[in-house]
Amino acid sequence: MANPTAAMLVIGDEILSGRTRDSNMHFLAGELTRHGIRLTEARVVADDAAAIICAVNALRTAHDHVFTSGGIGPTHDDITADAIAAAFGVPISCRADAMALLRAHYDRAGLEFNAARQRMARIPDGASLIDNPVSAAPGFTLGNVNVMAGVPRVFEAMVASVLPTLTGGEPLLSQTLRVLRGEGEIATGFGALAADFPDLAMGSYPFVQNGAHGTNLVVRGTDPARIDAAMTRLAALFG
Amino acid sequence: MANPTAAMLVIGDEILSGRTRDSNMHFLAGELTRHGIRLTEARVVADDAAAIICAVNALRTAHDHVFTSGGIGPTHDDITADAIAAAFGVPISCRADAMALLRAHYDRAGLEFNAARQRMARIPDGASLIDNPVSAAPGFTLGNVNVMAGVPRVFEAMVASVLPTLTGGEPLLSQTLRVLRGEGEIATGFGALAADFPDLAMGSYPFVQNGAHGTNLVVRGTDPARIDAAMTRLAALFG
Repeated sequence: MANPTAAMLVIGDEILSGRTRDSNMHFLAGELTRHGIRLTEARVVADDAAAIICAVNALRTAHDHVFTSGGIGPTHDDITADAIAAAFGVPISCRADAMALLRAHYDRAGLEFNAARQRMARIPDGASLIDNPVSAAPGFTLGNVNVMAGVPRVFEAMVASVLPTLTGGEPLLSQTLRVLRGEGEIATGFGALAADFPDLAMGSYPFVQNGAHGTNLVVRGTDPARIDAAMTRLAALFG
Repeated sequence: MANPTAAMLVIGDEILSGRTRDSNMHFLAGELTRHGIRLTEARVVADDAAAIICAVNALRTAHDHVFTSGGIGPTHDDITADAIAAAFGVPISCRADAMALLRAHYDRAGLEFNAARQRMARIPDGASLIDNPVSAAPGFTLGNVNVMAGVPRVFEAMVASVLPTLTGGEPLLSQTLRVLRGEGEIATGFGALAADFPDLAMGSYPFVQNGAHGTNLVVRGTDPARIDAAMTRLAALFG
């Protein structure tokens, strides 16, 4: 499959301590699949500059697109923007257009646009802003790295802003055959069939229902006719 | 904090395509925190041998412990055991004790112990087995890498088998102060307080409740007296 590839970097101590359950990765995975971009790797790192820099540089050279979530708020533990600037070796400073967006937002809300909030206007040189219709503080795109907020409502809005600007591939399609047999019973036939369709990806996912073992057989690819052909053979084998 | 560190590697196309939502990372994060082991990194890779080998070798040299989930079932897309053997450069073959465990399990269930199911007895040379009280097919520990199933019920049982064998550190404790002010209002004072407690980790997590902005201020560390001292000062500032 020649679709573009992507990686996600989730940034935040709270995910790794078990305090918070990440939901952004699952959301992004579904959106990218629909857009024809293959998410092939994801990482979670702490709010630690060295860890962020190392991960961003590894991911941005290996993938067409990188998406980050978390660490762009006003507090001392929000270090993502500075770490991204360091990863690219570019300066970072408060930017006039971001300051204007934030000032207007806090003026409307009757809240002080203090030093902590001004910190959210720090954007690496050369980046373009990502719109935040929820709470104004922008994300940004630098090179192939899209830097977004961790709060799910804001992350999702930013993904909606960014995705239409990216060139996707053919949508990644999938079909599922649900069989009421355990994986161990269908494995040999399923594996032989998968070998006949090297252009498709086939996976099996076991489940238990009322104490009985079953398996979801999933066929993925970009060519609907090939997927149909594989599903016809699967149904003949196990349907 | 001198606690041992750990990394998690989630293996599976189904997580990256958005078909399945991973829950093992969140579970492991909480268990490790209670056991005094710091989860400092997590990665998700596809069912791809090169990706698994590369990630395992990066993680096992950088962390005290590595935990993997997924890819140890009977089907053709279950390639984790072979990839781990390749990462360590050791042979892999069907092992007598694993064969005996599986044969007994399928005999009890009245199911054929066929070639696909025998594949789950493939264990890299030098590994020790991890008990699977749910469905018999064992995980294994090779060096500092603990290889476990992806099915959450089995993963959780395997973690329960492995964790007591690992030397943890002092439990990682945390306390939270919930304040009904936005992050932008507390950031400056909170940052200054964090600087006074370099031995503790402090994070802020915004929320919205009935349209009002609030923030959870979390203090983490191993010394309860130091956490109490920080919480007292936090409460005086924002309580």
